[in-house]
Amino acid sequence: MSIQSIAINTGGGDAPGLNAVIRASVLAALNRGWKCYGIRDGYHGILMPELYPDGGIIPLTKDRVRGITHLGGTILGTTNRGNPLHYPVEQSDGSYLEINRADELLDKFHELNIDALLAIGGDGSLTIANAFVERGFPVVGVPKTIDNDLFGTEVTFGFDSAVSFATECIDRLHSTAESHHRVMIVEVMGRYAGWIALHAGVAGTADAILIPEIPYSIEKIAQKVTDREQTGRHFSIIVVAEGAKPNDGDISIIGKSVGQSERLGGAGERVAKQIEQLTGKETRVVVLGHLLRGGTPTTFDRLLSLRFGTAAVRALAAGETGVMVGLESSEIRCVPFSDVAGKMRGVPLHSDTILTARDLGITFGD
Amino acid sequence: MSIQSIAINTGGGDAPGLNAVIRASVLAALNRGWKCYGIRDGYHGILMPELYPDGGIIPLTKDRVRGITHLGGTILGTTNRGNPLHYPVEQSDGSYLEINRADELLDKFHELNIDALLAIGGDGSLTIANAFVERGFPVVGVPKTIDNDLFGTEVTFGFDSAVSFATECIDRLHSTAESHHRVMIVEVMGRYAGWIALHAGVAGTADAILIPEIPYSIEKIAQKVTDREQTGRHFSIIVVAEGAKPNDGDISIIGKSVGQSERLGGAGERVAKQIEQLTGKETRVVVLGHLLRGGTPTTFDRLLSLRFGTAAVRALAAGETGVMVGLESSEIRCVPFSDVAGKMRGVPLHSDTILTARDLGITFGD
Amino acid sequence: MSIQSIAINTGGGDAPGLNAVIRASVLAALNRGWKCYGIRDGYHGILMPELYPDGGIIPLTKDRVRGITHLGGTILGTTNRGNPLHYPVEQSDGSYLEINRADELLDKFHELNIDALLAIGGDGSLTIANAFVERGFPVVGVPKTIDNDLFGTEVTFGFDSAVSFATECIDRLHSTAESHHRVMIVEVMGRYAGWIALHAGVAGTADAILIPEIPYSIEKIAQKVTDREQTGRHFSIIVVAEGAKPNDGDISIIGKSVGQSERLGGAGERVAKQIEQLTGKETRVVVLGHLLRGGTPTTFDRLLSLRFGTAAVRALAAGETGVMVGLESSEIRCVPFSDVAGKMRGVPLHSDTILTARDLGITFGD
Amino acid sequence: MSIQSIAINTGGGDAPGLNAVIRASVLAALNRGWKCYGIRDGYHGILMPELYPDGGIIPLTKDRVRGITHLGGTILGTTNRGNPLHYPVEQSDGSYLEINRADELLDKFHELNIDALLAIGGDGSLTIANAFVERGFPVVGVPKTIDNDLFGTEVTFGFDSAVSFATECIDRLHSTAESHHRVMIVEVMGRYAGWIALHAGVAGTADAILIPEIPYSIEKIAQKVTDREQTGRHFSIIVVAEGAKPNDGDISIIGKSVGQSERLGGAGERVAKQIEQLTGKETRVVVLGHLLRGGTPTTFDRLLSLRFGTAAVRALAAGETGVMVGLESSEIRCVPFSDVAGKMRGVPLHSDTILTARDLGITFGD
Repeated sequence: MSIQSIAINTGGGDAPGLNAVIRASVLAALNRGWKCYGIRDGYHGILMPELYPDGGIIPLTKDRVRGITHLGGTILGTTNRGNPLHYPVEQSDGSYLEINRADELLDKFHELNIDALLAIGGDGSLTIANAFVERGFPVVGVPKTIDNDLFGTEVTFGFDSAVSFATECIDRLHSTAESHHRVMIVEVMGRYAGWIALHAGVAGTADAILIPEIPYSIEKIAQKVTDREQTGRHFSIIVVAEGAKPNDGDISIIGKSVGQSERLGGAGERVAKQIEQLTGKETRVVVLGHLLRGGTPTTFDRLLSLRFGTAAVRALAAGETGVMVGLESSEIRCVPFSDVAGKMRGVPLHSDTILTARDLGITFGD
Repeated sequence: MSIQSIAINTGGGDAPGLNAVIRASVLAALNRGWKCYGIRDGYHGILMPELYPDGGIIPLTKDRVRGITHLGGTILGTTNRGNPLHYPVEQSDGSYLEINRADELLDKFHELNIDALLAIGGDGSLTIANAFVERGFPVVGVPKTIDNDLFGTEVTFGFDSAVSFATECIDRLHSTAESHHRVMIVEVMGRYAGWIALHAGVAGTADAILIPEIPYSIEKIAQKVTDREQTGRHFSIIVVAEGAKPNDGDISIIGKSVGQSERLGGAGERVAKQIEQLTGKETRVVVLGHLLRGGTPTTFDRLLSLRFGTAAVRALAAGETGVMVGLESSEIRCVPFSDVAGKMRGVPLHSDTILTARDLGITFGD
Repeated sequence: MSIQSIAINTGGGDAPGLNAVIRASVLAALNRGWKCYGIRDGYHGILMPELYPDGGIIPLTKDRVRGITHLGGTILGTTNRGNPLHYPVEQSDGSYLEINRADELLDKFHELNIDALLAIGGDGSLTIANAFVERGFPVVGVPKTIDNDLFGTEVTFGFDSAVSFATECIDRLHSTAESHHRVMIVEVMGRYAGWIALHAGVAGTADAILIPEIPYSIEKIAQKVTDREQTGRHFSIIVVAEGAKPNDGDISIIGKSVGQSERLGGAGERVAKQIEQLTGKETRVVVLGHLLRGGTPTTFDRLLSLRFGTAAVRALAAGETGVMVGLESSEIRCVPFSDVAGKMRGVPLHSDTILTARDLGITFGD
Repeated sequence: MSIQSIAINTGGGDAPGLNAVIRASVLAALNRGWKCYGIRDGYHGILMPELYPDGGIIPLTKDRVRGITHLGGTILGTTNRGNPLHYPVEQSDGSYLEINRADELLDKFHELNIDALLAIGGDGSLTIANAFVERGFPVVGVPKTIDNDLFGTEVTFGFDSAVSFATECIDRLHSTAESHHRVMIVEVMGRYAGWIALHAGVAGTADAILIPEIPYSIEKIAQKVTDREQTGRHFSIIVVAEGAKPNDGDISIIGKSVGQSERLGGAGERVAKQIEQLTGKETRVVVLGHLLRGGTPTTFDRLLSLRFGTAAVRALAAGETGVMVGLESSEIRCVPFSDVAGKMRGVPLHSDTILTARDLGITFGD
């Protein structure tokens, strides 16, 4: 079948570069004479049309994607609620039933003469996309997560932007930590993988880096702070991935059980309390959180996004389906969904970046 | 008396541009044939010499200040503890007595043949400096606070850097707020004055700006969020100065008394809880705090710092004492300590920047 | 007369912040219930309607100005050709006659029920605007020039952005000049005034700064390079305003008459040739030129532009005409065109920034 | 043999990240108990000791490399003159004889008990380093060229920084080109390979990219400009690598023979003249040149440099010699000099980045 029209959607959390992917895929599609549509807010533009008086599916023209390459966010909107495969429908008794609305989405695609889908998203989005593939509808995926923990690609777009901003923040805290003789804790994203913490921590010359892949001993971290103190370095910077865990499994903070609410403190807060207690040094926490998701993509991410976007269109044009584009050895290749879905790519414990950190005197608390 | 040797110190919180002031004043002093000394960590380099085996007062040479113009922090260190006019001394019964160590500092200056002091600091530092002036020792001050709330100067160095970074953060949150249909609260420094919140909020096009100078009605802020919702703008950005206060004086958060600890939440956290409750919209808080103090100064701040630093030396050379350099109508002038000490410069309620915010549709909650 | 509709135009060279001025004035006008129109490409949208099939005057709505605050350039376009007061019309014999098309423009304004004009531009644009004022049509001007040489305002928008980028470039050249033992010449804009060269040169710690206000001796500049050489500093950075002139009036380069073409070299090229000849050191030139006009405005310029834009609307609303908004002592005020037109504001020779440069050991070649 | 002391040198042109490599290798070496020396200005610190009264070989301690990670340039200095294998010695008759001073350098290493060399440089530096390897002296190389054209590594440090700055410059020119209806030519480094032009051109959305690997037809480029004109896009951005060549081999500019001097114009100037002639549109050139070499490395380059630096030390510790560290599939590996020396890695003509450019509608003039 020859493609004449495609839909594009973006799902899951924001990542710098999304708009560049959209623009690149739209231009590549238009150049082939295809029509392009954008689905708003994940699949909500179709699933909840009542929310979109101006249309939940919008034509993507050359004019519509002009000048968006460097803009953060996504012109299509995104969402991480309302998975169409497990869509919650309220019952008469107030309970919720989950239904699969994949066929409904496909019906809509057919109704609009859409021949294929270009799905930009993380692991969850690719799983949804696979439901269409199984039903015979062509889909090519573009991997998106600033956490960089997707299988099938050496790097995801948005990661370099997140690492760059986190590094800039570490730089900023360095000078104030040094001037004020403090311990500064920087909590960054990374629930399951420590890529951002590792890369930003090494680039920003942290003193300790705590990542999910390497359970830490809080005593060893405190020791590092004390050792520095004794050689006249009266400050320390500790980068903590939100998923970092102590090696004894104890994540309680003295006098308070943790986890009551996200706001009572995550990994960074926990580490800060303990370090302050163990070392007696004034310790402050900065949670970068949402700041890492927004903003202008770095040049690296802009280029990667443009490459991913056009490559996905080339893959569709070549008849590929059920694959995701990915980067391997500086070139783009296609990887079957089945090779990547449900897998998580953590930092390899013997990667040279880990070795680099150790050679620079950075501790992981192990 | 002709000056042949001066000391320089930096007190209070960090501000981008401190090192540029130091470098400029050192070069300007050396060019006049003076010697230059730097006192470490406020006055600690003299008051607690046992902490500085390599010397608490260090010679500042051309080589020592090379390449520091753009570095954040201060090569001299700083402190906001141990005010020498009220220095805490532990008594045999464990209680503390406050003593005035100003004469002791002067003795040290005389012992080292130091003829004058260039004091870089905020309101507190200038008060200390004034004690020397009253004792006949020449001092010229350089105003320092990223909050921009000092009297006697239209702008302080570090302020432009803080506003620029805060604006960048607002930009970043914009895209993710819009993509995710959220309310984002950005808390910035400003305990008594709302300069940073106002300038960053206008530059970053916030929807509401809460500053100490204008007590807010939380209902009006919530109304703004709801109004936007109804015109299809499913997100809002609210910038909150840490000293922002509601007009009914009620700063409790439902189910929890506030102020137990800084970490349980300041002004931003409080506003977030209430907005979420009043509007039902997902609301997140980002506290910029220490990120605003560090980092490379903007070009504006670099230049202003260099101008302040050399101007302070020119003032000393001209026999001035008990004055602070300040900016007025784009030129440097000297202002007597007595005109500025103990005063706080808030945002004028009818300044054109306030009018600009209102004209752009930004609410102050009043 | 109560205003119900205004037109906005931008004239002359580009400046970062133009779009922020446009957005601010449009929002401020819409908030007052006014209609807003934008004239494209200076006055070309009216004077040459045949070039604009979609309309040379476009309605400016809230949507049209969304998200443009931080964009460089101007959504209206600009031009520095075809002054409507001296508009060239080709005659049958091939010669050109200049005619005044001011009345024609006014007719068009009346035809569209436009009650007032908000003119954003430099000295030339204000002169044109004044022709409308003289004919009784309300106009408020917003000063625009990255050169910062306009009378009636302490600073123009775009200047801080230009200085910041120039300083970043000087920083970049510093490291490579030092590593390679070279003299680097950086030519920046400033035909009649040396503001950019002075501010960027001081902030970037140049070794010499050549500006139109201070004729230079090339021998003194060469001496500076040689003096540095002898103290082990094997490189020098010289910032040259394009209008810098030697004190002997001789601007020839050995073996070649200058001025054949802009590309054969301006002030920077000339200085480079002579320095290389006098010192024997490898000397390279970088001409920043157009790079200074484009790009995202700094936060300072964003805010200043937003303030200028809304202030101009407030001035129109208050019945002002024939005035330009300007910054004085950190607040906006209105200045009559007659006080500013045809005047050029150079760097005062005894301004503290000049003194700062001298105190830092920077030479002006005088 | 167990290593106890190493020397480090940097050769060839500047690249952002050099200091990060130095710092990383020094820390990694010190952590192993080794001593570290830095040779100043390539090998000049040894070959011309009379120029270095304070020593041409300096001890590299922890303090010496503190805080340099983000600084541009190299604290060791560099040079691309005076190849020690072909060292020019003036004869009594005024002629020059080339001699090989490799043995002399080795003697010096032995005299100082230096056991191995860590050579940071481009193809030329690696060739010199190989002379030591052939004489049995252990050497590990770190690839350095912002041009990214070295064999044996997917990317070199400094490249991302150069591309990022070039992209920012293209962004800046975009807005001013559009506002002023001009053709802007941006000339970037790349004498033999078009990596910088390609990456920056795609990321910055140029309209045409001219690289050495794809000879261009000037008529096709002019056609692109004209085509855009006719669809209402009255400006174009053309990125030109300095080594770009027309497919007819004619590099003369009308009325002037080219190549008299670098300053009379390189590839960018040539293209500008011809485009202006063929299209009649105002065309301006910006030569980025030296601006690309200096400045703070991007976070990507900082991290890559730190990884390269420590990996080189690990390689030495593991007994490797005659190898260069390189990046392959996101991990560091070692590559024999013999596999990389004298080879140049150009842009593969069918790389996905080339395909991306074409899909985005960018022309290469082929």
